[in-house]
Amino acid sequence: METRDLQASERFAPDKMQKCSLFQTQRLWCDLYCLEPGQAQKVHSHAGSDKVYLVLDGRAAVTVGGEERELAAGQAVLAPAGQPHGVRNSSEARTTLLVMTAPPIS
Amino acid sequence: METRDLQASERFAPDKMQKCSLFQTQRLWCDLYCLEPGQAQKVHSHAGSDKVYLVLDGRAAVTVGGEERELAAGQAVLAPAGQPHGVRNSSEARTTLLVMTAPPIS
Repeated sequence: METRDLQASERFAPDKMQKCSLFQTQRLWCDLYCLEPGQAQKVHSHAGSDKVYLVLDGRAAVTVGGEERELAAGQAVLAPAGQPHGVRNSSEARTTLLVMTAPPIS
Repeated sequence: METRDLQASERFAPDKMQKCSLFQTQRLWCDLYCLEPGQAQKVHSHAGSDKVYLVLDGRAAVTVGGEERELAAGQAVLAPAGQPHGVRNSSEARTTLLVMTAPPIS
């Protein structure tokens, strides 16, 4: 059985946001994003994949389709295929997010 | 922007586990499972969809492919397509899980 402990999977780096893969299959990606204060994933889009961001710790300013909203731990957002999206650690503390993408980006 | 607050989305019932949909697209389902002590999702399988369970609160005994393992909050498991899987609240407290399925079960 493939299990993962999220806290043990966390990895931070001073130069950029870290994307830690939890599970990768032909049908989905499940990742942990670890952002130091001020770090970000640039706004981008992919035509054929939907993405869900869930803030696990800290606070994140999430952009979807030109709108930005600040989310706290326990809040989630959908970035539908084709919509520009990105995330930024808008807090003074480390921020972690669970990110699921389906299907994987080819 | 479609956002969800997980705590506000929780719903429990005395007769059976509650499955609360957070996001449904053509490519994925993202649900919150809410289980009172002793409640369970029966072991089942689906040939074409992968599933990820993440325990958010409480403890869950998760079965995948004939093996059962107890997971605590912050632990996740992959149930690959075709493998029998299910979940049971093995604790004395309420248990919630984030569950992602891709693609949706047809």
